[in-house]
Amino acid sequence: MSAFSLSEDLEFAFRLADAAGEAILPYFRAGTAVDNKEAGAFDPVTEADRASEAAMRRLIAEHRPGDGVLGEEYDTLPSRNGRGWTLDPIDGTRGFIAGTTAWTVLIAHTREGLPRVGVIDQPHTGERFFGNGDEAGLTHRGIETPIRVSRVTRLDKALMATTDPYLFHGAEAEVFGTLRSKLRLTRYGMDAYAYALLAAGGVDLVVESGLKPFDVQALIPVVTGAGGIITDWSGRPAHNGGQVVAAATPELHAAALDILAPAASRA
Amino acid sequence: MSAFSLSEDLEFAFRLADAAGEAILPYFRAGTAVDNKEAGAFDPVTEADRASEAAMRRLIAEHRPGDGVLGEEYDTLPSRNGRGWTLDPIDGTRGFIAGTTAWTVLIAHTREGLPRVGVIDQPHTGERFFGNGDEAGLTHRGIETPIRVSRVTRLDKALMATTDPYLFHGAEAEVFGTLRSKLRLTRYGMDAYAYALLAAGGVDLVVESGLKPFDVQALIPVVTGAGGIITDWSGRPAHNGGQVVAAATPELHAAALDILAPAASRA
Repeated sequence: MSAFSLSEDLEFAFRLADAAGEAILPYFRAGTAVDNKEAGAFDPVTEADRASEAAMRRLIAEHRPGDGVLGEEYDTLPSRNGRGWTLDPIDGTRGFIAGTTAWTVLIAHTREGLPRVGVIDQPHTGERFFGNGDEAGLTHRGIETPIRVSRVTRLDKALMATTDPYLFHGAEAEVFGTLRSKLRLTRYGMDAYAYALLAAGGVDLVVESGLKPFDVQALIPVVTGAGGIITDWSGRPAHNGGQVVAAATPELHAAALDILAPAASRA
Repeated sequence: MSAFSLSEDLEFAFRLADAAGEAILPYFRAGTAVDNKEAGAFDPVTEADRASEAAMRRLIAEHRPGDGVLGEEYDTLPSRNGRGWTLDPIDGTRGFIAGTTAWTVLIAHTREGLPRVGVIDQPHTGERFFGNGDEAGLTHRGIETPIRVSRVTRLDKALMATTDPYLFHGAEAEVFGTLRSKLRLTRYGMDAYAYALLAAGGVDLVVESGLKPFDVQALIPVVTGAGGIITDWSGRPAHNGGQVVAAATPELHAAALDILAPAASRA
């Protein structure tokens, strides 16, 4: 098995993203066009999810036969070489159903279980965020630009994003409410796209819980490559999912952790 | 003053949208790129808002000199011919600041104060939703497709959108909570883009309050052109703003009004 450089891994991740996008787009906003939402016979997002992951798995099987695959839709394929791919074929399926463009394809390349390269891709708008832990970038309409987190250090200057405030319950809801009250602004409904915007400097803080490994692994090299920090609510590595907090700066991360830690789950 | 057909009005509205987009895009995600968010000297969204409305007003002054203009950023220009333009140069400024693509330019052409043609434009992704009360469409990457609302009639099948659940207070918050609990799904954070997705069939219900006339007038010809219904929470015309509810079908609209009406403001 040849050793791939990070940039070869990133190029291959882009091929996976291209294939996923081609598989998904025929289904996007298609359920509504054929006016059969209430019929229930056809579920475009499930079809698109499976087609997307199957397309990526075919390419991996062909070109990276020893690599493992952890994906949302199909069985885990163990790695035979310490390398692997963690795939969320459509992150933000509820946004997909609504016709928003905040859903994304998430692709992480892992080594010994740790994500080293990540891609957050929006096929409909053509925005592709990517990173390798050292650098991060965005391509849109053929133009590639480096991206970097903001320099916001204070909660009262920070813009936070989370998917749905009603996803928090009990102690989580309590600390989330406390945090929200101290911030400049909170935005909702973005799923993984929120982490891409954090990497690009627009969002300063993302707080979520209940994430799966395939929800979070692709985000880590993008956020850290853009200079940000991403951990669980206790400050530990986030690649196993669960409660996740991403921040633009160490100061902001520490301030958020102070508030979130009392509701951190004990793993 | 010559009489413009609806399609000439729509074509002119597209020219306005083009001009607005050109004025805005240099500012989009620019504040973060120059890393001066905390400096406070430069406010990209305010600059973009003004540049967008000024560009549209210049075109109106040149090509439609008798038409009135109602816009968010500058003084109202009274109509001298019964026609006018209602402009929101950037709807969803908080989404703009965050770097999302859910902000839009809103353009309505009015006759005797009533919106007859509407455009909901997203310059970054190139999505343009439009309608004239009889028809509605979407152009994206040069492809124009007709759009139509969903056929969802029941609350428990409906996907609702609203910008921010914390914008409701008192009786409004109470009825919103009741409504939310009866629905299939609720999504947040879309501002006017939610009405575009309702017109395109992905979202079935939009509920908001505190809207200004320039927030809502462009939406009306798009929603009704796609076959939807948009009123205030008492079922009256929505063009003056305030509490707004848009629904895909008469049944869904009636079911939502039943729940919302107790919190309807008495105008």
